[in-house]
Amino acid sequence: MSLPAVAKFLFPVAFLLLASPSMTSAQEKTSSATGRPVNAERLRQSLEKLSEFGRNPDGGVTRLGFSEADMAAREYVMGLMRAAGLIVRVDPAGNIFGHREGTEKLPVLLFGSHIDSVLHGGNFDGDVGSMGAIEVMRALNDNHVTTRHPLEAVIWTNEEGNHFGLGTFGSSAASGKFGPEVLARRGDDGLTLADWLRRYGQDPARFAEARIAPGALAGYLELHIEQGGVLDEAHIPIGVVQGIVGIRHWRCVATGFANHAGTTPMNRRQDALAAVARAALAVRDEVRAEPGRQVGTVGYMKIEPGSVNVIPGHVEFPVELRDLDAAKIERIWNRVEKRFAEIGKEENVDIHCALDDTDDPASSEPEFRAVIRKAAEEAGLATMDLPSGAGHDAMMMASITDIGMLFVRCKGGISHNPAESVEAGDVGVAIDVLGRFLELLAKG
Amino acid sequence: MSLPAVAKFLFPVAFLLLASPSMTSAQEKTSSATGRPVNAERLRQSLEKLSEFGRNPDGGVTRLGFSEADMAAREYVMGLMRAAGLIVRVDPAGNIFGHREGTEKLPVLLFGSHIDSVLHGGNFDGDVGSMGAIEVMRALNDNHVTTRHPLEAVIWTNEEGNHFGLGTFGSSAASGKFGPEVLARRGDDGLTLADWLRRYGQDPARFAEARIAPGALAGYLELHIEQGGVLDEAHIPIGVVQGIVGIRHWRCVATGFANHAGTTPMNRRQDALAAVARAALAVRDEVRAEPGRQVGTVGYMKIEPGSVNVIPGHVEFPVELRDLDAAKIERIWNRVEKRFAEIGKEENVDIHCALDDTDDPASSEPEFRAVIRKAAEEAGLATMDLPSGAGHDAMMMASITDIGMLFVRCKGGISHNPAESVEAGDVGVAIDVLGRFLELLAKG
Repeated sequence: MSLPAVAKFLFPVAFLLLASPSMTSAQEKTSSATGRPVNAERLRQSLEKLSEFGRNPDGGVTRLGFSEADMAAREYVMGLMRAAGLIVRVDPAGNIFGHREGTEKLPVLLFGSHIDSVLHGGNFDGDVGSMGAIEVMRALNDNHVTTRHPLEAVIWTNEEGNHFGLGTFGSSAASGKFGPEVLARRGDDGLTLADWLRRYGQDPARFAEARIAPGALAGYLELHIEQGGVLDEAHIPIGVVQGIVGIRHWRCVATGFANHAGTTPMNRRQDALAAVARAALAVRDEVRAEPGRQVGTVGYMKIEPGSVNVIPGHVEFPVELRDLDAAKIERIWNRVEKRFAEIGKEENVDIHCALDDTDDPASSEPEFRAVIRKAAEEAGLATMDLPSGAGHDAMMMASITDIGMLFVRCKGGISHNPAESVEAGDVGVAIDVLGRFLELLAKG
Repeated sequence: MSLPAVAKFLFPVAFLLLASPSMTSAQEKTSSATGRPVNAERLRQSLEKLSEFGRNPDGGVTRLGFSEADMAAREYVMGLMRAAGLIVRVDPAGNIFGHREGTEKLPVLLFGSHIDSVLHGGNFDGDVGSMGAIEVMRALNDNHVTTRHPLEAVIWTNEEGNHFGLGTFGSSAASGKFGPEVLARRGDDGLTLADWLRRYGQDPARFAEARIAPGALAGYLELHIEQGGVLDEAHIPIGVVQGIVGIRHWRCVATGFANHAGTTPMNRRQDALAAVARAALAVRDEVRAEPGRQVGTVGYMKIEPGSVNVIPGHVEFPVELRDLDAAKIERIWNRVEKRFAEIGKEENVDIHCALDDTDDPASSEPEFRAVIRKAAEEAGLATMDLPSGAGHDAMMMASITDIGMLFVRCKGGISHNPAESVEAGDVGVAIDVLGRFLELLAKG
C-alpha cells in the first residue's frame, strides 16, 4: 500500500489532512451510507486546538494527567462531545463518556483513548484515538447513520500514570483493578488521588462506582499510534493488534564490596557494577536467543557509592520482559536467572531479584481482528498483524469485555517525545477504518 | 615473617599494643641507642584519644578536613607535639609542623601524614602515620638521640579532599601545586576554602607562603596503612613503597536513543546502557590483558532517562586507570579507546571520552627504599616492595623532594570504612622501622 506524499504533523501541529486518493478510492468502492468520509478539516482543527493545552515552548506538549492543562483540555473535549450531540457523563474516576443512542437496548460499544501526555510528550499518543472517536461520531451524524448498539466515545483519565506511577488509571478504575484503596496515594506533586478527583469535580467517596458493570459493554475498540516503528518500516499504514503484551518487572540488587579503586588489585575485587554490566548483557542475550517479538530491557542502574575512585559495592537494577506469550516470558526469565547465578558466582557478587509487577498479556478478540481487516479491505488498505508492546487502556478493558485495537503508522516509532509524528493521510484512513468497523459491528 | 596473635583494633579503638616477641627480638639484635623501643602504651593512648574526635555512634570516625571535629583534633595533636618538646608552626594552608632541632644546619627531614578522614572512615588511615611520627619524636627524646638533620613531624590539611574535592590539599599547597586561585572555591558545606582557612586561624592572603622553599627539605617520609590487602594476603607486615601510581580519569558519554521499552524491537534499539555495559567490561578486559599491578575502574554510570520502561538514551561514565608506569596507562587506554569505537559502531551508539584529570606517577627515592629495607632487616622483619595504588601527600612532596613511604599491613585491605583494622604489633614494628630509618638517615 503506497500513499501519496502528504503533509506531516509538524510543530505546531501542522496538520493538513488531505483527502488522499486512497481515501477517495475507498469511498468509491462502497455504496454503504456510513460515516465515511470523515471531515478531514474538522479533525485537523480538533487536534490542532487540543495541542494548545499544555503546549511546550520548544515543541510537543506537557499535558500531564491531573494537571491544570489536562483539566482545561477536558473541558474542550466535553464541549466537542456536546456539540456532536453526545450525552456527556463523567464517572467518579474522571473518565469522560460521550453517549450516542442505539436503536435497540443492547450493550454499549465503547471506543476512545486518552488525552493526557507524558512530560515533554508528543501530539498524537492518545490524542489521535480520542479525537478520532469524536470525529467518527460526527461523521455518523453527518451521514445520518443509526446503529443497533449504543455507541460511546471515552476519554480515559491519566493513562500515562503521571504523579502517581499508576498507569491506565481511569481504565483500571473502570475495570475494577483499582479500588478506593488507591485514593490516599500521594503523588509527586504533593496531592493525593482523592484531592485530584475532587478538583476534577468528582466525589472520591463514590470511586467504586466508576467500575463498569459486567455485561454493560459489547466491546471496546481503541485506535492508537504504533510506537515501535514496525508499520513505518514495513510501509503499512494500519496495524491490527493481536493483543497487548504481558509485562513483568523484576527489581534486582547486586551486592559486592565497595573498596578503593586504586589499591584493590583486579583479582581481589567484588565489583557489583561489573557484575551488573554482565547481567544486563545476559538479559539481552537471552531475549534474543529465540525468535519472536519479545523484548527485554534494563532501564537504569543505581550505583553506590557511585564515585570515580571507588569500586561499586551495590547496584540496583530492574529487568523488564514483555511478550504476548506469558510462558515465553517465564522461559526467558528462567534462563536469565540461571545466568545471573553464574555471573554472581564468577564475580563474587550476590545478585538477587524479586518480581515487582506483572501485567498479564491481553489478547484482542479474533472476531474484532477479522472485522478490522475486513473494514481495511473495504477501504483498499493493506494491514499487518502485530502485538502492542506498550500497555494501553484497552489492556484494562480486556478484563471486562472483548477488545479490538488498531494502530496507525507513526514515523520511526518515536513516541513520548515532541518529535512524535504521523502522516495526515494515515490518520484519515485509520479513522475511516474505525468508522467502517463500528458500522459492521453495530449498525442496524 | 609470622607474628604472634595480638589484639586487634576494634571499635572503640581497642588498641592493645603488646610488646610482641618480634619487637623484643629486634631490640635484642641491635645495640644502638636509637628511639627504639617506642612506648607502646603511649602510642595506644594517643590513637585512642584521637579516635574520640568525630567518632561515629555506629563505629569508625567522621573527621572531615575542614570541620569542627578536625579543628578540635588538631588542637589535641599540637598539644602532643608541644609536650614532646617540638616547636609547633602552622603554615597558611593549615599544615601543622612540629620541629626538632638537629645538630647541624642541614635541610629538614620531614615525616608525617594526615588526621582527617572520609565520611564514615576508619581509625587508621592517616592517623597511624601522624601519631607514629609524634611517637618517634618522643622515643628519640626518651633515648636522648640527637640527629644531624633537623626533624619535623607534619600533619597535612584535608588529605581526603572533603567539601572541595581537592585531595591532598595541604601538601598540594606546600608543593606549590595549588596557588591562591583555589581559595574562592566553595565547598559543599557552603563555605569557601578561604573561609575555612580563617577558621583554622590562618590569613588566606598569605596562602602562597605555604609553599616549601626549594632545598629546604632533605626528604619526606610517610608511614601509612596499606589499603589493598596485598601485605595481608602475603602475611608480611611492612611494605616498601616503590612509588605512587599515576592516575588518569576520563569522562565518557554514550549517546544512543531513548525509546519505549515495550514497543521498540530489539533490533531497532540504540541502547546507550547496553553499550556502556560492554564498554565497562572492555575496560576491565584491557586492564587484565597484560601482567602487572595496574588497575582500571568504572565507578558509576549516570543513566538517562533512567526509567524501568524506557531504553536508556544517554549514559555518562568515568574510566580511571592507575599504574606506576605512565606509558602502560597510555597503552591500555589506546586499546580501550579502540574497543569503545568498535562497541559504538556495533551498538549504533556514540561513545566519546575526554581526559578529565591526570596525576603522574611519583617514584620513591631508591636510596630511601634501601634504607627502609635495611631498617626492617635490622628489626628482623621481612618486607615486600609494592606500589601505592592510592594517592598520598607523599605524591605531592615528590615534586619538591625525595620521598620514601612504608606501608603497614591492614586487615583485608579495607579502608575508608569503619571496619578499617590493623594489628597493634604491626604498628609497633612499623614505627620501629620508621625510627631506625630516621636514625640511619639523619643521626649524627
